[in-house]
Amino acid sequence: MTKTAKLIGVGVGPGDPELITLKAVRALQEADVVAHFAKAGNASNARAIVASHIKPGVTELELRYPVTTEIATNTPAYCSTMRQFYKTSARAVAAHLDAGRSVAVICEGDPLFYGSYMHLHVRLAKRYPTDVIAGVTGMSGCWSAVGTPMAQGNDVFTVVPATLPESELERRLADAESAVVMKLSRNLPKVRRALERAGRLDRAIYVERGTMANAVAMALTAKADERAPYLALVLVPGWEYRA
Amino acid sequence: MTKTAKLIGVGVGPGDPELITLKAVRALQEADVVAHFAKAGNASNARAIVASHIKPGVTELELRYPVTTEIATNTPAYCSTMRQFYKTSARAVAAHLDAGRSVAVICEGDPLFYGSYMHLHVRLAKRYPTDVIAGVTGMSGCWSAVGTPMAQGNDVFTVVPATLPESELERRLADAESAVVMKLSRNLPKVRRALERAGRLDRAIYVERGTMANAVAMALTAKADERAPYLALVLVPGWEYRA
Repeated sequence: MTKTAKLIGVGVGPGDPELITLKAVRALQEADVVAHFAKAGNASNARAIVASHIKPGVTELELRYPVTTEIATNTPAYCSTMRQFYKTSARAVAAHLDAGRSVAVICEGDPLFYGSYMHLHVRLAKRYPTDVIAGVTGMSGCWSAVGTPMAQGNDVFTVVPATLPESELERRLADAESAVVMKLSRNLPKVRRALERAGRLDRAIYVERGTMANAVAMALTAKADERAPYLALVLVPGWEYRA
Repeated sequence: MTKTAKLIGVGVGPGDPELITLKAVRALQEADVVAHFAKAGNASNARAIVASHIKPGVTELELRYPVTTEIATNTPAYCSTMRQFYKTSARAVAAHLDAGRSVAVICEGDPLFYGSYMHLHVRLAKRYPTDVIAGVTGMSGCWSAVGTPMAQGNDVFTVVPATLPESELERRLADAESAVVMKLSRNLPKVRRALERAGRLDRAIYVERGTMANAVAMALTAKADERAPYLALVLVPGWEYRA
C-alpha cells in the first residue's frame, strides 16, 4: 500500500458550488473515501455542493443522523442517541483509516466552526494523521451575497445562537458592534424583540440560503411572517453605520 | 463595448494559495483590471496569494497606503490622511468603471470582514454594479492549521481586537465560550493578563501566518517572548473543553 491513512476535514463552503477552494477540490480528487453527514430523509447538502468533483466510482460513506425530530434536543434521550451516533460514525471512518485509506469528510462551511465534522475530529485526530481544510463559512456567504460590510477596525464581532434566553440575547446584541444570530427556526419572534430592545432592529438583515439561486434576503423589519429555517441567519452589520 | 463595468470584491483567503475559491479564480480570469492595496515598502500579500492566477498583460492598479507608521493611528492627522487615501483610491477604481471595465479588488481573507475593500465598497457599491466573492477568513485558516475545534452547538463566539482596554478584554473573554483576539502587535502582554484573569489562558493558542509554510503555532503559555506581528492571532477554543 503506497497511500497513508489520513482523515481530512474538508470545508466545502456556504452553498454556491463555486465557493469551494482549490484545496478542497484536490482533496476530493485524491481521497479514497468521501464521507458525509446527512439528515434522515434528506440528501446531504455538502454532497450536493461538491457533486461535480466526486470521482466516478469512489467509495462513499454516508453518516445518516438518526431520526431525532420526535425527541426534544434538551433531553437525556437525545444526547445519548447523538453520542451513540457519533461514536458509531467515528468507528465507520476508523475502519477505512485502519485499512490504509484516506477519508475526506465533507462539511458545509468551515469544518471547525459549528460543524458536525468536529464530532469525528475529537474522536479520531489524536489516533490518525489529520488535515483540516478551511472553508468559506455560511455567514461569510450570506453577508457577501447581501453586500453588507460586517466589521471593521476595532469592532467587536459576535455570533449568538437564537436559542439563548431573550434577556441574554438582548444583552449580547447590545454589547457588540457587529453580530450574527444563528439557529433561528422558531426563535424569530424572540430575536426580533431582543434586537428591538438592544436598539439593533433597524439594521438587522434576514438571509436564507444566502449563496444559492433561491436565496431570500431582506431587512428583518420587512419580513412579514415568523417562519425561518434552521440555517437562516440574521446579520447585524456594524461598521457601515459609522463609515 | 460588450462588457459591463462591475466592481468585484474578491476574497483570496488566508494565505495558502490553494485556499482560494473557484469563483475567485474565475473572477481574476474575467476581470479587465486587478486592484490591490499594498503597504508602503511592501508587496501586496493578496497579490502574492493570487500570483499564479493573474492573466499576463492584465491591467493592475496598486493602491498604496501612505506612509503612516510615523503617525499614531488615533490622531486626527492619521484619520484625515486615511480618509483622503480611500477617497483617492475609490476615484482611481471609478475611473476604470466609468470606462466600462470590470475591476476585481483582491483582498486577503473575506472582503467584508475587517478588510480594506470595504472602504471602496461603501464609496462605490451604490453607484456601480457590484459583486462580492466571500473568502476563507484568516481566523478559519489559523484554527484549521492548528486543528482545533472552535465553536459548537450553542456556543457564543466573539472576535475582539487586542486594542481594547484591558478590563474590557477580560470581560469579553470571560463572557464568550470561544474567542479570537486580533491585532496583537504590542498588545500581547495585556492580552495574556486579560486571558489569565478571565480564566482562559490555559487554552489560548498563539498563531502566526497560520496557513503559510513558515507558520508559527504554540500554546500561548509556551511563547517565551512578547513579539507578535499585527496579523498574528490568539485563538481561545470553546467546544473541545466540553466535548
